[in-house]
This record gives sequence, C-alpha cells and structure tokens, in this order.
Amino acid sequence: MQSVESNTQLWIEEIHKGVLGQRFRVRDTLFSGRSEFQTVDVVDTYGHGRMLFIDGLVMLSERDEHVYHEMIAHVPLFSHPKPRHVLVIGGGDGGTIREVVRHPYVESATLVEIDEMVVDVSRKYLKSTSCSLDDPRVTVRIEDGLAFVKHCKQKFDVVIVDSTDPIGPAAPLFGLDFYRDVKSVLAENGIVVSQGESPYYEPDWQIALAKLLAQVFPDVFFYNYHNMTYPGGLWSFSYASTGSHPLRDFKKERWHALNLETKYYDPEMHRAAFALPRAQKKALSAFINITNDDQ
Amino acid sequence: MQSVESNTQLWIEEIHKGVLGQRFRVRDTLFSGRSEFQTVDVVDTYGHGRMLFIDGLVMLSERDEHVYHEMIAHVPLFSHPKPRHVLVIGGGDGGTIREVVRHPYVESATLVEIDEMVVDVSRKYLKSTSCSLDDPRVTVRIEDGLAFVKHCKQKFDVVIVDSTDPIGPAAPLFGLDFYRDVKSVLAENGIVVSQGESPYYEPDWQIALAKLLAQVFPDVFFYNYHNMTYPGGLWSFSYASTGSHPLRDFKKERWHALNLETKYYDPEMHRAAFALPRAQKKALSAFINITNDDQ
Repeated sequence: MQSVESNTQLWIEEIHKGVLGQRFRVRDTLFSGRSEFQTVDVVDTYGHGRMLFIDGLVMLSERDEHVYHEMIAHVPLFSHPKPRHVLVIGGGDGGTIREVVRHPYVESATLVEIDEMVVDVSRKYLKSTSCSLDDPRVTVRIEDGLAFVKHCKQKFDVVIVDSTDPIGPAAPLFGLDFYRDVKSVLAENGIVVSQGESPYYEPDWQIALAKLLAQVFPDVFFYNYHNMTYPGGLWSFSYASTGSHPLRDFKKERWHALNLETKYYDPEMHRAAFALPRAQKKALSAFINITNDDQ
Repeated sequence: MQSVESNTQLWIEEIHKGVLGQRFRVRDTLFSGRSEFQTVDVVDTYGHGRMLFIDGLVMLSERDEHVYHEMIAHVPLFSHPKPRHVLVIGGGDGGTIREVVRHPYVESATLVEIDEMVVDVSRKYLKSTSCSLDDPRVTVRIEDGLAFVKHCKQKFDVVIVDSTDPIGPAAPLFGLDFYRDVKSVLAENGIVVSQGESPYYEPDWQIALAKLLAQVFPDVFFYNYHNMTYPGGLWSFSYASTGSHPLRDFKKERWHALNLETKYYDPEMHRAAFALPRAQKKALSAFINITNDDQ
C-alpha cells in the first residue's frame, strides 16, 4: 500500500501482483497502526465511504461491503435446515456477524478473531459493520481460529471462514488440518463457507482450496459474488457440507417469512451465484459439484 | 488517462469519477493517436495482454475481453429463433463480430463503426479480436450508426450496440430517436442488446436507458457480466425485444449442437446473468421485466 500525494490529493492504493493498481481518493486517514500480526488502516474516501485495509489490501468499503457480507452469511444460513449455532473465524470488522444475527432462530454466534486491533478499530470507526458485535447472542473471542477449532468441544451448524488472503496470519486457514478440525466441530448437515479468492487472478489457489476441501467433505461447491473494490471485481466463496445442498435444500419459505432488507442477496441471486464462468468451472471440475448439466 | 513513470515502470491509468483509479503496468506502447472523434491507445501490458483505450477509458484487455464479447453476442443469438442477419453498431475492435460469426446460420454480419482508426488499429495490433473482420459474411462500414439505422432499408434479426460510454461520439446512441430507428430495422422477433454501463457507478444511466427502451419495446431486460478491467467489475447489458424472451426462448438444443469453445458463456451463465443484485432490480423495476418472482 502506498499513499500518493499530488496537487493536494491523497490516494490509497493496492498494488495487485505488480500488474494492477487500484487506488481510492482519500478524504481523511482515521487510523493507521501495526498489530502483532499485520498493518491495519482505516481511511475515509471520496466515493466509497470508509475503507479498511489490512497489510495494504482492501478488506471492505462501506459502499459495497453488503455484497460480501450478505453472500458469505445468507447462502449457508438459508441452505441449512435450522442454523442455531454459527461460528465465524476472522471477520473482526463484524459485517458477517451483523448478517448472521438477522436470522432470529440463531441462538449463538461466536466470532474468533486473532487480531484484537481489527475488532477495536472496527468498533470505533466502522460502526456500520461492527454494529451487532454487542448483540446478546454474540461472543467475541480474541484468539487463533486454528487453535479454537482444534480444541473446541461445541458443535456448530454453520462455520464461516471470513479470512484475508492466504498469506500472513491467514495462511494456515487454507490447510487440510484446519478443515479436518472444522469438520469435527460441525453438527449434522453442517456447512462451512470460506473466502475463496479470485477466479481470474488466483485460479491456482482456488484449485488448491477445492482439492483440500474435497479430501475432507463429501460435497464441495464454489459460488461467486461481485466486489467493486477487490481486484478484478469477481470473487468466490467455497461451500462444503456434510449434508446440506445449497440449491436443493434452499429454504425459500424461510426467506419469505423473514423479509430481510438485503441489497444484493435474494433467492434468485443465491441460485445464480453458483453459475460459474465456464473456465472456472472447468478448472475446479475435478473437485467440486457442478450445479447444472447445461455445459 | 495518464502515464505514470517511476523507477523505470510505466503504468497506464483510468481515473473513474475522480474517486477511483485503475492502472495497469505497461510493457510497451504500441499506438497512440487522435482521430476525428476521440483518442485511441493500444498498449501491451504485464498481466493483462494488449489493451485498447478510447478517450482514456479501458475498452478491452486481451486477458478478459472474451467475457464481454461472449455475453454481448451469444445471449441474443441463442435467444432468437433463427438469427440470420446481425448488425453491430460500434465494436470496431471486431470482438463482437468474432463471436457472431461463430454461429454458422448467420448469413450476414454488418459492422457500422464511426471511427476508422479503431478498425485500422485493431486490425494491426489486436488480431485476437479483429480476426473475423475478413470473414466473407462480414461487411465493415465506416459511418455513423445513428444515420445508418435512420436510412437503412434492410431488416436485422439481432442488433448489438457495442458502444463506448454515453459521452462523446456515443452519446446519441443512448437516445429515444435512435432506438425507434433500431426498432424499425428489426425483423420479427428481433432483439437489440446494448452496452448498459455499471449498476454501481452509473445507476442513473441504467435507469435512463431502461426507461427509454421501455418506451419503444414491449419487453426490456438487463443482464450482467463481470469485467475485470472495468471500474467496479460488474457491468450490464440491456436486452430489448419485439418477441424473443431471453430465458423462455433460449435455444438449448442449438447450443449443444454448436459445441462452442467459450470460456465464460454457457447456458447456466446465460440464465444466471439475468439475476440482478436486488438493489439494481429495484432501481430498474418500473421499466424492465423481472425474470423471477423469488424476491
């Protein structure tokens, strides 16, 4: 991440793989720190609201974070027969928890974030995402998600791995041992959804993730969402389950009963998100379930 | 568009609305000119292949142009009962024509491009998109598309408006008179598909386009595609028709018979593209057909 100043304009920039730069015009720098694990920056921008950067990478903008958080939360929650206990690993900004607790039958939502600075900074500067961290059903634990699932005795219906890229502290979250432990904390019909990188820029990471999920879970899917502030715009989540199919088990009646005021997600988008670009489908086909025969 | 040089690195940058910069690392500048209408630049980049810029805006990169061109061409061509005569307005790089002539029952494909420089430069530097401009079924006309449809006596099954943004020479292509003339050159069950801007950055332009299409055509739809090198990554096409429904009339058998080697488009993506983000659906709902009741 570099700050570029010229003619009184301040910009914050993410350089992707040395070939693409995405920069956002900054109104004000609200926080800039370095925790034990990573750098954390919050800026207020022209056009994209407040933005969170970790290690120089865009984590969210207020303008479009609803897409990421609606899609990482509602797809598994509406695919599970009755999600009562939800675990979020990472996601210290609180956006995923905010969407999870909109489901009234969720009895407990546990956030395990390794970096307290992310939670503290989000509580202070990103109230639109952190607003539900004090919900009485929510427990915030500052600890390593890897160790948490290894030693946890509780079972969860849905586990959401809301992590940064597989470098730095998040790297082990893209590992086989981690997902074996995740499976051990999943209850019957359990679902684990994970941040799955970009099909354009990181096809090899997607293949590696799909391959290791397929070694642990009987059913693996990928689904896509658009993030205007992530490089390339099209990004993916992985979906692995011990029994809940994301399309056949979608709970349409529950969606209609809840009447959520979403801005991106709805049942049509839920289904459409599993329609992968043909090249991505081919790249992952050895490891994932294909949702449609019309290829 | 600015060229930024530092430490021997050359970058080409599109600044969007003064709040977002997208820049690409340049290996070599192949062409830089100014026609009667606009500036035209072709650069070879690291990571995105050759790229075409018009008036400083990304038109295409070799890395992802297949998404745009497959989606602008195959969605209408596979929705029409028998597309024999196709008109492309704009699209001087030839990418849309390349996809159109992959349909063997197309007897004529007419390209009407206002700016000869775009065609000439594409023939010379962008052979991967211009490769079918010499197909015997293709006629390239260097003239104003607006005047062409006003005076044309021929009828077309599919019209594709492959234009730049609605500023400069392309502005009148976003007008009511133009679409009335387009309707007059459409044969029975005719379809017109147009470049429809970004739902995130240009919702007002999308509403204006949907509104004017609804004044001319009985059925109007929007569908989306991902473009990694366009600002925000999620962009739209409009689809208006005098009788061919994009989902109900989709010709699945023809898709299977042709066996096209697409990289993005397939029947599942054809359908999924019409699933709009809920906010976009609401913004356009007064003017477009909604493809699904599950909202």
